[in-house]
Amino acid sequence: MNINGARLNERLTALSRIGATPDGGVTRLALSLEDRQARALLLGWALARGFEVGRDVAGNLFIARRGTNSGLPPLMTGSHLDTQRNGGNFDGIYGVVAGLEVIESLEDANVRTNADFVVTIWNNEEGVRYGPVTMGSSIWSGKLRLDDLITEVDSDGVSLGAALEQDRAELFELAAWPLQSPFQFYVELHIEQGPVLDAADTPIGVVTGIQGVRQFLFKVQGEAAHAGTTPMAARKDAFSAALELCERLKEIAVVSDPAVRFTIGRFVVSPGAPNTIPAEVTFTVDFRSPDTKTLRERGAAMLAAAGEVWGPCLAEVKEFIHSEPVSFDAEVMAAIRSAAVASDLAFLELPSGATHDALHVARIGAAGMIFVPSRDGVSHNPREWTDPGHLTAGCQVLASAMRSLDRAR
Amino acid sequence: MNINGARLNERLTALSRIGATPDGGVTRLALSLEDRQARALLLGWALARGFEVGRDVAGNLFIARRGTNSGLPPLMTGSHLDTQRNGGNFDGIYGVVAGLEVIESLEDANVRTNADFVVTIWNNEEGVRYGPVTMGSSIWSGKLRLDDLITEVDSDGVSLGAALEQDRAELFELAAWPLQSPFQFYVELHIEQGPVLDAADTPIGVVTGIQGVRQFLFKVQGEAAHAGTTPMAARKDAFSAALELCERLKEIAVVSDPAVRFTIGRFVVSPGAPNTIPAEVTFTVDFRSPDTKTLRERGAAMLAAAGEVWGPCLAEVKEFIHSEPVSFDAEVMAAIRSAAVASDLAFLELPSGATHDALHVARIGAAGMIFVPSRDGVSHNPREWTDPGHLTAGCQVLASAMRSLDRAR
Repeated sequence: MNINGARLNERLTALSRIGATPDGGVTRLALSLEDRQARALLLGWALARGFEVGRDVAGNLFIARRGTNSGLPPLMTGSHLDTQRNGGNFDGIYGVVAGLEVIESLEDANVRTNADFVVTIWNNEEGVRYGPVTMGSSIWSGKLRLDDLITEVDSDGVSLGAALEQDRAELFELAAWPLQSPFQFYVELHIEQGPVLDAADTPIGVVTGIQGVRQFLFKVQGEAAHAGTTPMAARKDAFSAALELCERLKEIAVVSDPAVRFTIGRFVVSPGAPNTIPAEVTFTVDFRSPDTKTLRERGAAMLAAAGEVWGPCLAEVKEFIHSEPVSFDAEVMAAIRSAAVASDLAFLELPSGATHDALHVARIGAAGMIFVPSRDGVSHNPREWTDPGHLTAGCQVLASAMRSLDRAR
Repeated sequence: MNINGARLNERLTALSRIGATPDGGVTRLALSLEDRQARALLLGWALARGFEVGRDVAGNLFIARRGTNSGLPPLMTGSHLDTQRNGGNFDGIYGVVAGLEVIESLEDANVRTNADFVVTIWNNEEGVRYGPVTMGSSIWSGKLRLDDLITEVDSDGVSLGAALEQDRAELFELAAWPLQSPFQFYVELHIEQGPVLDAADTPIGVVTGIQGVRQFLFKVQGEAAHAGTTPMAARKDAFSAALELCERLKEIAVVSDPAVRFTIGRFVVSPGAPNTIPAEVTFTVDFRSPDTKTLRERGAAMLAAAGEVWGPCLAEVKEFIHSEPVSFDAEVMAAIRSAAVASDLAFLELPSGATHDALHVARIGAAGMIFVPSRDGVSHNPREWTDPGHLTAGCQVLASAMRSLDRAR
């Protein structure tokens, strides 16, 4: 069974007009009018083919094509429709449209599956309007409780509870869908958002797991003084101490290890005058690894580094994100590999550097992900781009992998 | 002849009330109402003792006590009355009040000098309202031309020309004083504004010269990318490159050399998000040395460093300040040493880390400086403080040194 690549790409183009920005990007924050318009369009396409639709309390949407054996738990696929401010046209959206394309192609080909095939539209993956990121899948999977988040307000003072209620009221009535309902497999198709597949000119990525990530905020305290009059030996130069601490952290991270990611992205020096010795530096460390032990041990060493001697300055640190790595299901990965081979598509295995909804689904069941190349690795940006041929190939692999998983039991 | 330490300290207290700030500092920007009030008070004290007063086109003020030999060029001393915003009560002010104290003590003791003794109140040393710093002495010494600066405006749109005219009109009429008039010696008394004398518990500093200073602005250009998805080897991380460049610049500066000062005071990373690889870093380098060759050669190496290879990033640099070091006159230094010994005051020799009006005077004649301790090295701050005993001692050394220089020829 072949999927319809033309339909897939037309639908992506249609969605790119909802919340379009002047420079070719899109702004569709979770539960905004634009998000609702996009969700309505997806549900409309689904209803027009006779699929069942539903919604859970977290605002996640579900599109189901029934299988022949109602006793089997469903196979799930999906992603999200919400975007960053002036984000790209493929991040998330592709996985949702491709999921719908899989079940429409099954319908077109009159293929019956054993289990139900369910396409999910996870609510608020980007976490721009309301935090945290991957909110919908976190609640669905039981990692977070909606009640703990409901009073959070956006920058206009609108609470998450009110935004969910407005979305429920303004989007036509949908059947209630349960949280944490059992499933056989979950397969998410996504653009890579990194440069690996593009650089290797390889159309398919078999994702081995999602990196763990730890984020730290370091603060180095020195003392401001006159740059001309204060001898080097009498200084408490927070910048100089921070420089050494950064070198030490790079060493701890082992940045030559190709499996880790180490980034100092925010680094603020105060008071920040050319002729004043810095009194304080704060900086963030983003450390990622697909390996639990690496993340735990090197992360612990980073926390400990703050307590070492940094010249005449004091350092402190707090951790503000700690997410363990997850490995994807071997059976799902095997099905993706086989599907790529069957379509004569080259693939390589790689971990995901970014977080996805599949992270949370994988914690409660068998899950996996398929990546397609992102040109130059650019994402969260109007320049985000994936070749239409690659989009079609990825969707074909998704369809084949899901069909083989459906036959597996 | 002993100076009157009580009068000296009372006058400093009186001046601290003009432009006083709530936390004990003072704001008296050049040519402001407060500056004019302080200048009027100084001139009033001088006129009340029968001294002659004058003003040059740059707004510098002069107080002269005539000597017995009108054929000799004068001996000069002085400093400035203007301050930083919420600055300290001693920086500059001390040197002016001490200069007046010297000639008043001569008057009290009925001592005749050979040459005229002239106290200068240099205009706009701080360069806060109008740039550059040490404006008045720069114009008087011929380094800058008033005509090139006259159209500069302050933050309220008032031109330097208009501010000078207002000061001239609102401060009583004064005799015209020439620019670059010949002088035998210039001796400036100032608080150290650094920690050396305070840490050494030494009341007198014989200043050997004023450090040269070069200031550079470096820019490192990389490329923003996702911290999770972009492999270390595929990054153009501007922060990481800047870190290496900073280490290289520290090496070039030889920060272990006790005679140099090396400060990175401003360091700005953009875009500055924890999970985004930095696209650009700009930072300043402030490099000082009392040695011309050190400043020239190491500074040139810093400029050249921008052109080296900084990983996958490009660096560029521009120089925005380059001021050559100046050495003070040996005869003036000898007179200060002898004066300290005569008063049984310990002294040490040290270069000035900060710039002073004496820098410009020294370029056209024999000049020197005396420092007294600054508690904890703090300056440009309401916490600026010098012990009254040290203020008296410094003024005594100034008086003795000037008298011995007056007898020297």
